[in-house]
Amino acid sequence: MEPLANAAITDATGFRAGAVHAGIKRDGRSLDLCIVASDRPAAAAGVFTRNKIRAAPVVLSEERLRSGRCQALVVNAGNANCCTGERGMADARRMTELTAERLGLPVGDVVVASTGVIGVHLPIGHVERGIGQIELRPDAGHEAARAIMTTDTRPKEAGVRLEVGRRTVTIAGMAKGSGMIHPNMATMLAFVATDAAVAPSFLRRALGEAVECSFNQMTVDGDTSTNDTLIVLANGAAANAPLELGAADGKPFVEALTAVAADLARQVARDGEGATKFVEMVVEGALSDPDARLAAKAVVGSSLVKTAVYGADPNWGRVLCALGYSGAEVDEHKVDLKIGEIWLMRGGQIQQFDRAAGVAALQGPDVRIWANLNLGSGRATAWGCDLTERYVEINGKYTT
Amino acid sequence: MEPLANAAITDATGFRAGAVHAGIKRDGRSLDLCIVASDRPAAAAGVFTRNKIRAAPVVLSEERLRSGRCQALVVNAGNANCCTGERGMADARRMTELTAERLGLPVGDVVVASTGVIGVHLPIGHVERGIGQIELRPDAGHEAARAIMTTDTRPKEAGVRLEVGRRTVTIAGMAKGSGMIHPNMATMLAFVATDAAVAPSFLRRALGEAVECSFNQMTVDGDTSTNDTLIVLANGAAANAPLELGAADGKPFVEALTAVAADLARQVARDGEGATKFVEMVVEGALSDPDARLAAKAVVGSSLVKTAVYGADPNWGRVLCALGYSGAEVDEHKVDLKIGEIWLMRGGQIQQFDRAAGVAALQGPDVRIWANLNLGSGRATAWGCDLTERYVEINGKYTT
Repeated sequence: MEPLANAAITDATGFRAGAVHAGIKRDGRSLDLCIVASDRPAAAAGVFTRNKIRAAPVVLSEERLRSGRCQALVVNAGNANCCTGERGMADARRMTELTAERLGLPVGDVVVASTGVIGVHLPIGHVERGIGQIELRPDAGHEAARAIMTTDTRPKEAGVRLEVGRRTVTIAGMAKGSGMIHPNMATMLAFVATDAAVAPSFLRRALGEAVECSFNQMTVDGDTSTNDTLIVLANGAAANAPLELGAADGKPFVEALTAVAADLARQVARDGEGATKFVEMVVEGALSDPDARLAAKAVVGSSLVKTAVYGADPNWGRVLCALGYSGAEVDEHKVDLKIGEIWLMRGGQIQQFDRAAGVAALQGPDVRIWANLNLGSGRATAWGCDLTERYVEINGKYTT
Repeated sequence: MEPLANAAITDATGFRAGAVHAGIKRDGRSLDLCIVASDRPAAAAGVFTRNKIRAAPVVLSEERLRSGRCQALVVNAGNANCCTGERGMADARRMTELTAERLGLPVGDVVVASTGVIGVHLPIGHVERGIGQIELRPDAGHEAARAIMTTDTRPKEAGVRLEVGRRTVTIAGMAKGSGMIHPNMATMLAFVATDAAVAPSFLRRALGEAVECSFNQMTVDGDTSTNDTLIVLANGAAANAPLELGAADGKPFVEALTAVAADLARQVARDGEGATKFVEMVVEGALSDPDARLAAKAVVGSSLVKTAVYGADPNWGRVLCALGYSGAEVDEHKVDLKIGEIWLMRGGQIQQFDRAAGVAALQGPDVRIWANLNLGSGRATAWGCDLTERYVEINGKYTT
């Protein structure tokens, strides 16, 4: 597997994209509507928010993806189309109809995602005009990545190339992160395209595995949005022998998909609201991988750890405390703990450390914390960011 | 049930307290060690942190309280005696031995709690001298309440009087809240004394019920500490016919104990780190009481709700989002929602509201949010506080 430089979702063969400023964002200029489409029907799978309150596009797209196929995505920023009742469902459906008409596709092969303000109806006239203006190009992936941004400070894109059955396969994607959306909440949207040939059942399984170790291990503020969406399309343009569920040669593909998803997740964490530092927590030696995931995620999700990272305070008690309440099995008498390269605990014994070195390990833009629970072979990584006054300012003073 | 003005834990007949500055806190003057004791053996029950990493006093006191009886508590602030290994266990035991000797009690009838820095051994010499200096008085409850404070800005005390079997019974308590403790984490300690005569099995059940609707419904930053402790002693000095498990006349006592615990919990939330506002979330119409508790607690725990309250932004989408991810059953088409007296949603329909009135409802020191899920008869309240730049400052810039 080889990472792609300057990756874009259209790096996967047979995918084109297009984006416009449709006028959903009110600044009069930012891209806010895009389409990503394959030149042929694609296997498709999606995962969606577990929030009980789900935006109309989430409800519609999840239903459509049950078929296991899809050929185009239409995505808008600036309006979440959430808590918008029957009209919201009609608007989501209308977005897919307009896209299907524009591209000459069956409407059932188009899905939709939205991010932005909650409880306000989509300006469907603007959306309709916008879809009419979108021109698809094989080099417009970067524009699509910008069109799904809200208060993200930069677009998020990642891709890899790998061999599958002697064919070169590309997996590439884009995400938008945890920016505050006027006036409501952070939403995570991510879309991945690949030219690999895969069975839909295999793709669904692969996506489930990839998401466990990527987007599900990333947190900015712990608020699961109503619109979170991750969709992957696989159009088979690489002409490899299709990957089937249970096939031995599927593993490299799953690893590559996981790598792309994890790269995007890290970019989202790094661009968290008000963040000045990226935090990576590695847990080894847990009783199981799920235990390791719980433990790692609790640490990056702890407000006290996040503020300590911000203040460059080597406050290891907070890390230990978060491991303890994570739900994972933890025995304090066995824990090894390092911040950067500084040992804080070995086998549960407190280590004397040079305070200046401890502070230095927390001062760069990338903070790495590592723990070995010494209970088993479970392993996981989680990503987050620091908690700053700026987060409070963005979310407290940016009024509706 | 009648609330007590200016309540102190020693309002319960037969309880005395005493506090000193033992030198565990380094400011050279603040009270940091106290004893609360009954003049006769008391029924006792406790609940302790669910964190897998537990301070030595938590381990010791939980074990001792299995007997269902206890006569004295010794509590220090300034040092959590956590992650302190075998010496920590020996120090915790020593604190109870010194207290038992001082009071002429069996050591098994003394329990201990600690709050403060993690990973540093107790200055046991200071503690020993301090215990030797403590004089117990029936009017020293307020001093004890001050001696358990860390960065709390004020002591927290509450009490009620009620009739139990024609006898007047007092229940009174004290708590310390979510102050940042040098250098580690917030800890909640609470102690309640009553002169009611109760069976230990009844007391354990009553405490379990009380805590579900009080301390377990309160959050400041979501970090469950290694030292959280709540202990109740009932010495029978009121000479009522002892309350037994399953007795019909037990309900008023449980309600009164819950009222005292909830009063203390509200005081802790109100004094949350950096808080400028107290937030109360009431959920009605949930499928069950546990569902209502989940829903209410998710709202007061949401960073996005907390920052919106701070910024006086009537950002109802964040409340709805938190209800949605709480784990409780929620149907967005049925939700009623109010902030203060302002209707935001009725039966899932967005209500037009006067923005200035919405802002005003969030501007006072007490913010009340109410939701009816319209699914059942479950009901609960939860308490929290806003999230401010000051919280970040306290926890990010207050270095070890």
